[in-house]
Amino acid sequence: MPERGATVTLLTDFGPKDCFAGVMKGVMASIAPGIAVIDLCHGVSPQGVVEACFLLASSYAYFPPGTIHVAVVDPGVGTGRAILGIEAKGFRFIVPDNGLIVPTLAGPEEAETIVRIENDAYFRTPVSRTFHGRDIFAPVAAHLARGVPLATLGPVVHDFERGSFPTATRTALPEGGARITGEVIHADNFGNLVTNVRGLERARVVSVECAGRRIAGLQDTFAAVREGELLAFIGSSGFLELGLRGRSAAAALGVGPGEKVHVRLGNDPKQQ
Amino acid sequence: MPERGATVTLLTDFGPKDCFAGVMKGVMASIAPGIAVIDLCHGVSPQGVVEACFLLASSYAYFPPGTIHVAVVDPGVGTGRAILGIEAKGFRFIVPDNGLIVPTLAGPEEAETIVRIENDAYFRTPVSRTFHGRDIFAPVAAHLARGVPLATLGPVVHDFERGSFPTATRTALPEGGARITGEVIHADNFGNLVTNVRGLERARVVSVECAGRRIAGLQDTFAAVREGELLAFIGSSGFLELGLRGRSAAAALGVGPGEKVHVRLGNDPKQQ
Amino acid sequence: MPERGATVTLLTDFGPKDCFAGVMKGVMASIAPGIAVIDLCHGVSPQGVVEACFLLASSYAYFPPGTIHVAVVDPGVGTGRAILGIEAKGFRFIVPDNGLIVPTLAGPEEAETIVRIENDAYFRTPVSRTFHGRDIFAPVAAHLARGVPLATLGPVVHDFERGSFPTATRTALPEGGARITGEVIHADNFGNLVTNVRGLERARVVSVECAGRRIAGLQDTFAAVREGELLAFIGSSGFLELGLRGRSAAAALGVGPGEKVHVRLGNDPKQQ
Repeated sequence: MPERGATVTLLTDFGPKDCFAGVMKGVMASIAPGIAVIDLCHGVSPQGVVEACFLLASSYAYFPPGTIHVAVVDPGVGTGRAILGIEAKGFRFIVPDNGLIVPTLAGPEEAETIVRIENDAYFRTPVSRTFHGRDIFAPVAAHLARGVPLATLGPVVHDFERGSFPTATRTALPEGGARITGEVIHADNFGNLVTNVRGLERARVVSVECAGRRIAGLQDTFAAVREGELLAFIGSSGFLELGLRGRSAAAALGVGPGEKVHVRLGNDPKQQ
Repeated sequence: MPERGATVTLLTDFGPKDCFAGVMKGVMASIAPGIAVIDLCHGVSPQGVVEACFLLASSYAYFPPGTIHVAVVDPGVGTGRAILGIEAKGFRFIVPDNGLIVPTLAGPEEAETIVRIENDAYFRTPVSRTFHGRDIFAPVAAHLARGVPLATLGPVVHDFERGSFPTATRTALPEGGARITGEVIHADNFGNLVTNVRGLERARVVSVECAGRRIAGLQDTFAAVREGELLAFIGSSGFLELGLRGRSAAAALGVGPGEKVHVRLGNDPKQQ
Repeated sequence: MPERGATVTLLTDFGPKDCFAGVMKGVMASIAPGIAVIDLCHGVSPQGVVEACFLLASSYAYFPPGTIHVAVVDPGVGTGRAILGIEAKGFRFIVPDNGLIVPTLAGPEEAETIVRIENDAYFRTPVSRTFHGRDIFAPVAAHLARGVPLATLGPVVHDFERGSFPTATRTALPEGGARITGEVIHADNFGNLVTNVRGLERARVVSVECAGRRIAGLQDTFAAVREGELLAFIGSSGFLELGLRGRSAAAALGVGPGEKVHVRLGNDPKQQ
């Protein structure tokens, strides 16, 4: 860790009309002067945990080792839901225990350490009932950034809530090959539709179907199709995406998160 | 003040489609290399001074002592309105003299020092007629952050414009107790309706009425009501808010800033 | 260059719902710990190169000398379009070769050095086909900020694409004076309409016409007209703008980018 302390990132659903993220940074700067805080995104749909799951999973790895990723998409604030501190894959995460850490981690076995954050010596007090971002997440992140060990924050636990990030399912087909059924989990600013399907072997993809449209194979780049034509491709974070050259696929297909996507795979060439 | 100089925050109505806030940071970095600037919010409605009043009042206190809060919601730019530098409550503020400092300060008696910023030795010149954020607010903030004393910036004054932040009114009721009439001043990203009513004694609140709906008492947390049910609560900054568990109260009630809110208080138990 | 390395700015069309800008900052912080990155704007309309042209041209000059301006509005990502590193006017620019550098630079003769960025020793590998911001622009900017010379990044070239930033045209009138025809290129958060007309001599402007409305002369400030009245003025970056006191000119006129604007100039007093 550099002397200036670890980098902190923020991922929230606070939106553009409030000071909540700024206030979290103020609390952190008060505890750890000079702390480097990077905004991941504050435009998650209100209480859009599944959207946040995707954004965290597709972003966390591009930061300096030891970075503390703080995600506050937290419909359960003020209830008994736990807040977790997790060490995994060379990073730290502070997340509500609502499944937000999936699919960054498939399960607790991928974490080195998980603690339930309970040590209020590191909280801002009195803790409000509606803004734990300010009163728990921010001060805890700042203390971690300054070197406080994760284990100091609360008792070690061995599991977390899986939440509702949808899992793609894979079915072998009697005639050979397989069919993967997933769904759209995010539409980006360009109207590209990001799905929950990962790890595709490009050469085996016969077709991708969504909203009654069938797209043959995968492309490397938008330039491979004509203006106005649909394509399927592996996005920059490894998730299958649907795009439309020059326009918004989301608008053209009239779909968004939740829409089913079917991928048809041919036979595995290695098994033949 | 730490050696790196004081932290600066920015609160504006510049919106998401322009570079005005970035340009202010460029001007500050040119004067004070390494300066730490934190965005409070740039999503204030265009020329929404009252909204900015609330955002500043609910945020300023969470920053390191000596932080310089710069607010540029300034319909009067290019007119003769003054720009004020204010030292109060352990912080510095640079604001147009349009009431933006209310209710952060109830009146000038709560300030230690107020100066009218006029010393153009600390301005970017020539000063444009439409972008004082770049040409006055930003360079002045950077010089303050580097240690220039507030008194150097212009003559001391003893008053400021009160502007139009609405004041809640309180009426004693003949049958005992009281009635407070306030209004909605902000709707956050979750649809919670923030009002201008502060300092409520929780135990005395009998009911809150807004838009023809009556809510009994105050709750501590959203978890105290069922999904889809309205509640009234003291928000994280001490202002009375109305919320709706799991959805947007603003959308469900069809109201926004300006809507009246009535609070019924029972007798003061201490007076009985 | 200060020891902490040069400042970097970001101008993109990534919008508010993604982590792309945050990921670019993560990549930069990994290469250049403590690097100062300032957001110019991430709200450019998707693939709105002309809008980005204006925003860059009106902003770049307000930063510390040597600042590295990174602009990623890049419809050609994944095609053969080049990425340019440009040294000019005391700054560095990393831009796709799609005209984004116009009118910051009128032509290549205004640059000191132009290189085609090709040296993948400074890229993040493997380079994705859809997110060069993360894999090329960000790491290259971070290496430049740390002191890597521009010439190391690729071969020197002597031209760039002019793109489609519209040029205002000027016609001398038989009766004396001249007529300039330009167009609206941007509407800001306040509804002011920014045009591509620059360098006007205030005293010679007889009238400005747009959307069937004729405005006499230029004003210094909004305060020169009544509430609800249209005015023309030289904006804070030197471009001609149309505004409407107290409201949105864009909404009142019902126009946006692309709308023609005609300026009538009187005789040049110096030639009389």
